[in-house]
Amino acid sequence: MRLSRYFLPILRETPKEAEIVSHRLMLRAGLIRQEAAGLYAWLPLGLRVLNKVNAIIREEQNRSGAIELLMPTIQSADLWRESGRYDAYGKEMLRIQDRHEREMLFGPTNEEMITEIFRAYVRSYKDLPLNLYHIQWKFRDEVRPRFGVMRSREFLMKDAYSFDLDKESARHSYNKMFVAYLRTFARMGLKAIPMRADTGPIGGDLSHEFIILASTGESEVFCHADYLDFPTPPENTDFDNVTGLQSTVDKWTSLYAATSEMHDEAGFAAVPAEKKMSARGIEVGHIFYFGTKYSAPMGAKVMGPDGQEHEVHGGSYGIGPSRLVAAIIEASHDENGIIWPEAVAPFDVALLNLKAGDAATDEACDKLYRELTAAGYDVLYDDRDERPGAKFATADLIGIPLQVVIGPKGLADGKVELKHRASGERELLPLDNVLAYLGNRS
Amino acid sequence: MRLSRYFLPILRETPKEAEIVSHRLMLRAGLIRQEAAGLYAWLPLGLRVLNKVNAIIREEQNRSGAIELLMPTIQSADLWRESGRYDAYGKEMLRIQDRHEREMLFGPTNEEMITEIFRAYVRSYKDLPLNLYHIQWKFRDEVRPRFGVMRSREFLMKDAYSFDLDKESARHSYNKMFVAYLRTFARMGLKAIPMRADTGPIGGDLSHEFIILASTGESEVFCHADYLDFPTPPENTDFDNVTGLQSTVDKWTSLYAATSEMHDEAGFAAVPAEKKMSARGIEVGHIFYFGTKYSAPMGAKVMGPDGQEHEVHGGSYGIGPSRLVAAIIEASHDENGIIWPEAVAPFDVALLNLKAGDAATDEACDKLYRELTAAGYDVLYDDRDERPGAKFATADLIGIPLQVVIGPKGLADGKVELKHRASGERELLPLDNVLAYLGNRS
Repeated sequence: MRLSRYFLPILRETPKEAEIVSHRLMLRAGLIRQEAAGLYAWLPLGLRVLNKVNAIIREEQNRSGAIELLMPTIQSADLWRESGRYDAYGKEMLRIQDRHEREMLFGPTNEEMITEIFRAYVRSYKDLPLNLYHIQWKFRDEVRPRFGVMRSREFLMKDAYSFDLDKESARHSYNKMFVAYLRTFARMGLKAIPMRADTGPIGGDLSHEFIILASTGESEVFCHADYLDFPTPPENTDFDNVTGLQSTVDKWTSLYAATSEMHDEAGFAAVPAEKKMSARGIEVGHIFYFGTKYSAPMGAKVMGPDGQEHEVHGGSYGIGPSRLVAAIIEASHDENGIIWPEAVAPFDVALLNLKAGDAATDEACDKLYRELTAAGYDVLYDDRDERPGAKFATADLIGIPLQVVIGPKGLADGKVELKHRASGERELLPLDNVLAYLGNRS
Repeated sequence: MRLSRYFLPILRETPKEAEIVSHRLMLRAGLIRQEAAGLYAWLPLGLRVLNKVNAIIREEQNRSGAIELLMPTIQSADLWRESGRYDAYGKEMLRIQDRHEREMLFGPTNEEMITEIFRAYVRSYKDLPLNLYHIQWKFRDEVRPRFGVMRSREFLMKDAYSFDLDKESARHSYNKMFVAYLRTFARMGLKAIPMRADTGPIGGDLSHEFIILASTGESEVFCHADYLDFPTPPENTDFDNVTGLQSTVDKWTSLYAATSEMHDEAGFAAVPAEKKMSARGIEVGHIFYFGTKYSAPMGAKVMGPDGQEHEVHGGSYGIGPSRLVAAIIEASHDENGIIWPEAVAPFDVALLNLKAGDAATDEACDKLYRELTAAGYDVLYDDRDERPGAKFATADLIGIPLQVVIGPKGLADGKVELKHRASGERELLPLDNVLAYLGNRS
């Protein structure tokens, strides 16, 4: 993408309303724009990151056997009356009357609707286990939305819902999501630690939050430091292996880890002093097993192998991709701007033309731009008529992992400069070697 | 995807409430489920088609130079007061009060919001032309939603918005979208004919609807038959070529074509008798040039090369992907079910195991499934323990372009059957030749 033809509105000033660093950087780097309290537009650069985050979530959901569908944002109030949550949900639910004065709402979550879909079609235990997920915009009418997309009112959520014949198989479905989440966050360059959690309005008796550590995190967390070195479950994990998956989950829940709400001083005291970590954390995922909480009132039953009807056992599993984008920035930035992990970077390479208009520099840049693009790289080509200083600052601010800097001076020696955004490391390379250095991806 | 592990709820009975064939087939083939009046969930198979449609739209928008962002579904009423449309829009707008009794709405379209984004960042003609689009759920509270996703209340829309310094360059932006739309619909296997249109609540003085011909179409259309043979603008179309694009648009608007609202008997009378076509049509796209209708009241101005401020000239350009899925079915089905054009088919190949449980048949199917998947094909593998008749019926109903049928009888001769869904043509092939016959895609 040529920057001269792109829409990347960089702000020079740090917006005053932004209280946390991810919010400030997302506004400054032209990732988002606030349209009303807690409502954000995703500008082109931000949308690219959001899409990369979604793609990773989707791959790992699919790998674990979950199946994607897509439910509407607007729901009928009657559906929520069936579960008893319509009155219970409170003011966070955005309630709506349509032109015929029917009561509707903007979905804050989808347990009721997915249970309705399940009971409409599934009759037999033979069709289980089943895990259905979607990635859809949700709305929760927070009293005081803040921190940008970290706590917005309209937000994107991946929510998965599992259906099983009994508690034991539901536990396996829960474990599948547990392991899928570990892989999902690791692929985004995050260290996420599962912590036992309160079940809140979703209900149920088993729940984990996935917390990433960031000094600017919203809540205090306490955990055993060894979690940081646990290996991520591999790509070839067999999600049908019940005992294998259980042992992974057992390992990842074997050591102390708790948010402040669930913190137990006595339990933490047992952690060896040199392994005690107390830090700030950001919740990026939350999984629940809630048994028959929705299937019982809503009549979601299947015929079992015993010829009897059984209320299905359910769980729900949420990740907020929009919030994740902010969380990644909280975990990965410096004083000059964002440092995107490669897997979610909006572009792979920032190509900086230090003297746009100079024939030789333009030619070298244009050629490399075409070659890198053909080799499978997403390149943001800064071809604007701007001073080098402005280009360096923009590239650092928006945090593309690799900067390729081409100017007339270097070119005179046939050289270009590579800068790695994360390490700050720079190297000079012959122009013709850049492609070979990076490798062909396509 | 193994069908035994998929979620594909086929209905045996034809749903009574469905008045048109696409609605009937989408319900029967497990593409959608109604959640409330005019609100649909996209089941896994339907979502796959919707995503393929979106991908084609996105590619052609990007090719023409439009840039993707994503605006929220909920908007502030104040934004619509600025343009004067808040009171004018009527009951189709879903109006909402949040917990602080602020007036909000579920966006039926985004001219106001995108103009707000534009004016916040763009100051100079040097940043023009600019065309920003998003693919987002919209809501129009129809009095009587019907025809499934053809006329639903919550629907997906790709809406693009162009910004130009003056009318002449805005015309070029309009032409870019015009040509992008021709390519978009052609790639989906549709014959779309642009017809001059009323501008309605969007406003402006230049507008075209893109209409596909289908015997079950909602409106009557009149056109010159030669349009059906016009070549689609090629992939390497130069969207920066002003005269080239204009001549394409001139050609595609040179012959008579009108919906019943814009029909002119005298104009149609001039069409040679053997070229006169009157048919039913479905609107699948609508483009508008509306000049300064939004920029003037909302103060979206840029500095021109003359040093003066100019209100920008705008256009908007809509395609309804969710409606398109239904329109494609209206245009492509038979008595047995859907016939997906290859480009939007949910899977490329349906692999039918006629005797699941038979070791040799399972082995041959499993092997081909792995090979085709590795070769880049999306395969739906019917590995269920069902009668062959049920498998044939399902495969025809869901309309996958190619069926590969493997049973013990054919295997005894080392043969499998290929059936082309569109033509009904069948051929026997040695099992080992299937992959070579299809070719490697990855």
